[in-house]
Amino acid sequence: MQRFWWVNHKQTVRQEVGGGYLWSPKKEANGARSQFYDNMREAAPGDMVISFAHSHINFIGVITNYALSAPKPEEFGNVGSYWEAEGWLLPVDWQPVPAPVKPKDLLSEIQSLLPDKYSPINPYTGNGNQKAYLAEINKNLFDVIVDRGAFNIPNIAAASSSRPALIEIIEDATEEAIENDASLNKTEKEQLIKARVGQGDFRKNVFKVEGRCRVTGIDNPALLRASHIKPWRACVSAIERLDGFNGLLLAPHVDHLFDLGFLSFSDDGAVKISPRLPLSDLKKLGLELLCKNLTGPFAEKQRIYLAYHRDTVFLR
Amino acid sequence: MQRFWWVNHKQTVRQEVGGGYLWSPKKEANGARSQFYDNMREAAPGDMVISFAHSHINFIGVITNYALSAPKPEEFGNVGSYWEAEGWLLPVDWQPVPAPVKPKDLLSEIQSLLPDKYSPINPYTGNGNQKAYLAEINKNLFDVIVDRGAFNIPNIAAASSSRPALIEIIEDATEEAIENDASLNKTEKEQLIKARVGQGDFRKNVFKVEGRCRVTGIDNPALLRASHIKPWRACVSAIERLDGFNGLLLAPHVDHLFDLGFLSFSDDGAVKISPRLPLSDLKKLGLELLCKNLTGPFAEKQRIYLAYHRDTVFLR
Repeated sequence: MQRFWWVNHKQTVRQEVGGGYLWSPKKEANGARSQFYDNMREAAPGDMVISFAHSHINFIGVITNYALSAPKPEEFGNVGSYWEAEGWLLPVDWQPVPAPVKPKDLLSEIQSLLPDKYSPINPYTGNGNQKAYLAEINKNLFDVIVDRGAFNIPNIAAASSSRPALIEIIEDATEEAIENDASLNKTEKEQLIKARVGQGDFRKNVFKVEGRCRVTGIDNPALLRASHIKPWRACVSAIERLDGFNGLLLAPHVDHLFDLGFLSFSDDGAVKISPRLPLSDLKKLGLELLCKNLTGPFAEKQRIYLAYHRDTVFLR
Repeated sequence: MQRFWWVNHKQTVRQEVGGGYLWSPKKEANGARSQFYDNMREAAPGDMVISFAHSHINFIGVITNYALSAPKPEEFGNVGSYWEAEGWLLPVDWQPVPAPVKPKDLLSEIQSLLPDKYSPINPYTGNGNQKAYLAEINKNLFDVIVDRGAFNIPNIAAASSSRPALIEIIEDATEEAIENDASLNKTEKEQLIKARVGQGDFRKNVFKVEGRCRVTGIDNPALLRASHIKPWRACVSAIERLDGFNGLLLAPHVDHLFDLGFLSFSDDGAVKISPRLPLSDLKKLGLELLCKNLTGPFAEKQRIYLAYHRDTVFLR
């Protein structure tokens, strides 16, 4: 079901709107969890989000994909501190609001529509709440803003892509960093870059560990993708990127679901299906029954990577 | 079933072996068909091929993928004449022969093993036959050469990749040509490059023409790839690369089969399955029954692209 969100941008409104995303840390600076950050993983493609910055609503966006675990985009290329600052990156297709809205000016109208808990703004002053980032709002409030802003809701389906374009951008930046890494020789760079698309030594290494698609049983190499368990972009070393234990051989549709976090595995080999994947789609993919089978236990060395996949890629 | 081949290299042995491929025109210079060129499309992943050049066999290779329609790789980057010289490009993983073999020296032994028709060399002189390029040989002949050459047959499964690495190389060269094309502005370049991975305007344009995967019925955008009918790398203009009529929305496994030529469509919407795709694999993919349905007729503008796909991409 479509949901509606409101974001209070910090200093980064220009980057976020320009770059087509929202970014938040995963936790508060003191390590505490935050509902406003957890909401980043709740938001789904097709949801709408209102951008609030400098007391005005200038943009409304369509969320085009689920959140990715990723560093702040402005830090791309700065490989040293890259993964230390991992947060949630939410792809949004932003559109300008023709008649920008100042919520303070319509407080009496929207006061009662704001959420009781985790409200993005103070219902009496109209100022942004201190700790708020991404807050859920109801459709009535959203409709008032859309109406006042003379905003036309764009076609949602075509905006969404099967694999977030932001992944491409992150991976391109990572590839460039590998190219420029003076500690790697030519052959090493080549193999690390081939591994991005599941080819070369990485693929050969996975074939030494796995023999077939665990879900469909396919063993025809022409139909098997060598897929990283911990994504290539998230690996912290050449070893992780080329490790055969960090890979599975999957049929293309299973690979797609695994890559996007619609499907994962337990350590004992049970298939985990994300609640975000409609059962009707799983059926249309012909995977409903196959996913009920145990696929065989994982090796110790695979389990470390699988834990990362379940925590960070799998969509809860 | 594994087959065995023998290639008489022309002047290009160094490029072909170094680059990991074989390349031939599709027809004779006078337009006539040639069994030796047709064999390029017969060869299949896992087949073995003997390289004969300058009277010696110095290399033996594993064929890692089916032939692609592509220009001579040494012409990459020369976009002007690019597609005029389209031929068959066959990916081969070449290995050196430890003890190079000179067939002339063992004529008496191999004479009777050479094929009666389309022999690569003259059974009496040991010289390469004039018009021969890729010739099929029997396993006995292959075994004699392997034995005399002290050649170890490598592990075949891991050598083969799900999508030929040569496609990546061709597409990278094409992307570079687009980047350097002074007749395109920045936005046009961006959209043409996004189209390579089925994103951006191309994807939006396909959504205007198609609404769902024709085979599985899936309409969830997160599970749909926008796939070129005439491949992006083979398009001759920006119009073809962005044309919504040159695209289908396909579930990832159907997209994979379509991309590699294991599956195509008739103009009336019937699914065509390549004889190269084992029925058992089609079953494991859950597509056997779905592929028996008519998927709805194609528009006139789609049929032009589909004809290209059936002629050039579909594996007979």
